[in-house]
Amino acid sequence: MEPIKVALLGFGTVGGGTFEVLRRNQEEIKRRAGRGIVVTRIAVRNPAKVQAALGERAGIEVSTDFHAAVDDPAISIVAEMIGGTGIARELALRAIANGKHVVTANKALLAVHGSEIFAAAREKGVMVAFEAAVAGGIPIIKALREGLTANRIQYIAGIINGTTNYILSEMRERGLDFATALAGAQALGYAEADPTFDIEGVDAAHKATIMSAIAFGVPVQFERAYVEGISKLAATDIRYAEELGYRIKLLGIARRAEAGIELRVHPTLVPEKRLLANVEGAMNAVVVHGDAVGTTLYYGKGAGAEPTASAVVADLVDVTRLHTADPEHRVPHLAFQPESLSNTPILPIEDVTSGYYLRLRVADETGVMADITRILAESGISIDALLQKESDQIDGGADETDIILITHVTVERNVNAAIARIEALSTVRSQVTKLRMEALN
Amino acid sequence: MEPIKVALLGFGTVGGGTFEVLRRNQEEIKRRAGRGIVVTRIAVRNPAKVQAALGERAGIEVSTDFHAAVDDPAISIVAEMIGGTGIARELALRAIANGKHVVTANKALLAVHGSEIFAAAREKGVMVAFEAAVAGGIPIIKALREGLTANRIQYIAGIINGTTNYILSEMRERGLDFATALAGAQALGYAEADPTFDIEGVDAAHKATIMSAIAFGVPVQFERAYVEGISKLAATDIRYAEELGYRIKLLGIARRAEAGIELRVHPTLVPEKRLLANVEGAMNAVVVHGDAVGTTLYYGKGAGAEPTASAVVADLVDVTRLHTADPEHRVPHLAFQPESLSNTPILPIEDVTSGYYLRLRVADETGVMADITRILAESGISIDALLQKESDQIDGGADETDIILITHVTVERNVNAAIARIEALSTVRSQVTKLRMEALN
Repeated sequence: MEPIKVALLGFGTVGGGTFEVLRRNQEEIKRRAGRGIVVTRIAVRNPAKVQAALGERAGIEVSTDFHAAVDDPAISIVAEMIGGTGIARELALRAIANGKHVVTANKALLAVHGSEIFAAAREKGVMVAFEAAVAGGIPIIKALREGLTANRIQYIAGIINGTTNYILSEMRERGLDFATALAGAQALGYAEADPTFDIEGVDAAHKATIMSAIAFGVPVQFERAYVEGISKLAATDIRYAEELGYRIKLLGIARRAEAGIELRVHPTLVPEKRLLANVEGAMNAVVVHGDAVGTTLYYGKGAGAEPTASAVVADLVDVTRLHTADPEHRVPHLAFQPESLSNTPILPIEDVTSGYYLRLRVADETGVMADITRILAESGISIDALLQKESDQIDGGADETDIILITHVTVERNVNAAIARIEALSTVRSQVTKLRMEALN
Repeated sequence: MEPIKVALLGFGTVGGGTFEVLRRNQEEIKRRAGRGIVVTRIAVRNPAKVQAALGERAGIEVSTDFHAAVDDPAISIVAEMIGGTGIARELALRAIANGKHVVTANKALLAVHGSEIFAAAREKGVMVAFEAAVAGGIPIIKALREGLTANRIQYIAGIINGTTNYILSEMRERGLDFATALAGAQALGYAEADPTFDIEGVDAAHKATIMSAIAFGVPVQFERAYVEGISKLAATDIRYAEELGYRIKLLGIARRAEAGIELRVHPTLVPEKRLLANVEGAMNAVVVHGDAVGTTLYYGKGAGAEPTASAVVADLVDVTRLHTADPEHRVPHLAFQPESLSNTPILPIEDVTSGYYLRLRVADETGVMADITRILAESGISIDALLQKESDQIDGGADETDIILITHVTVERNVNAAIARIEALSTVRSQVTKLRMEALN
């Protein structure tokens, strides 16, 4: 059979990695796919650089004309490796309109414009494959969408941003504060010059949004996700959490609750016994809990040229195999048949339930603890663990001390109300630091 | 669309679990598969028990006639949940001959008779799906066969038998010897009355055999697998390994070496830092290393009614989706197109390379260590770590002491030759205990 022809849009880290893996493992890939997969067009802003890298490869047309690549009748699959939601969206929709299948690693595009793109693909009977958009080389989309179809998924919780996990590992292992750890990550290339998308949790929220749709059969709704990054996380809290037997990880969480779906990204205390708590450095891992299978975990590299290319090429193989099947018998883009997506709401953060870690500074006086525990009890919040540090004397002033509480699972609205009352106490000398905790059992 | 009709052969743990999951999650499964999946026939030895469990369910025919179930023209998929290689093989082949798709959890059947069964299925254009045959609910077959198609797989190493992992966890955590830990596992139902298949590594070898075929594109060759269980493992070695920073796990390993493929099951030292070393109790986990993706890990429950059913039902959904596609475009049974399987040999254990843990008892005399290290050096074996225990005096005799060595990676043939020479030394008072070590980095 003739090889299937692919146009690569973009030749950065992911595009270059995809080209290299397809080239190096072409024989092995053909033995699996039953057919060769070849890149015949590359569209880039700077073709000279690509041509220099490729050398003399007959049959590959390198140009700056992205539209021509997407319009080429010989091309069956367009691999969108540009990123962002501007030109990438336009080109993906144009490729679809031209009847081409699309493979992409673009989480922002799918988390924000997924509904539009999947609808267009459905109408034209083409596939949009995006394994690389979540957790890089870990085949988590396939696991969720095909491997766990028997299950009512209860929750997903994942370390899905390597930059922040690297920073958190450095903060814990070396006792660094956030700014120092970030600077180190930037020096090593683990964080970008403008790290906002990573450290503020936006990238993780894009990925969690995609997973929530696949797990629960709802549309992608990035605008409803609660997003909190790690830039305000204090080294103190990492240390206290450790004393209490927890590690702090930036988790993307999607959970089925009674009233709706929780979709949230925030620093989270995880019991140190859990495998997820022991995922260090720039690695990714996702825990999926289903009613039949129980807890499963998927671990690997979440970024980088070849790990991401591993997922892109797997999608190319899938499309090569399945594009001749009638569209009704393909795996639905978001796991559930499009006509049976549900409108279960995404809950506002105040309606989320979680355990809570609370740290506050109090005057070292009789009755302080009694006041705090009374307020918590009146708010229906029970305490799971409590740590009171030795008091230290402030310059020329009274003794103060840190109190750290971990609560049992409760609704966030109640915790917020209790915090407001606690902060109003005259003996409480600081705002209350609040972090969420997930037992993941 | 009409629901697709399934015949269940067997209604034990896995058959019963499959029935229950299909029933409980039928709406969710239909939303994914685009079509209902219903069991309309159950064949069992004791139908009265099944009928009592089912109550009054119209449309399910329960009988002892396995052949009638397999021959029923209304049935599209036969789910073989009997186990073993006798009647299960006959029924699977008969179902295939009748043009039915087969879903099975039967690792023994596929590891031993896979080539025959897959060839028959190919000829009739039907699918044989077996996600549940390896690592229960973990979708490892799908990950290997579809999720990692971009990669040249370098190795697979898995904890793929929950019974032995439970026993090893108990031995380490509670300092038990093997017999006591086994008895405890039997009392709790983690080990069978006749535990041979589990504790001698046969079950793990069946699963490793299937994974080796999928990873490397070779036929299943259970008869070439090296199989060593945990029944001879001493508590002493678990303790010494721990002192040196390792945990001992029963691993199923399939590795691509220069001269061929290693396929082996044996107790293995794993550095305690690795996630795999921290998989405790009856859980399963598989590490897969590919050239593009690097190291990935898949963790979950490897046995039990519903975790196994999770995999069986995922296969039923896959078959429901794909059975109308032309057979050439389905995922090949063993990941690689049947005409492109390779005849790369499975290496005999003497040709395997590994690190080695050696324990021996020696007279506490000057020169002993010099003799041993000289023999190792002459055999081209270098030492990675060494532990010499304080000597203890034997009743009325001379002082003796334990020496524990960990070698760098070397070929097993050389280690065996060195051991023979070491055991011939007059100062060596015991046979040498040899265990293999894998760094898994």
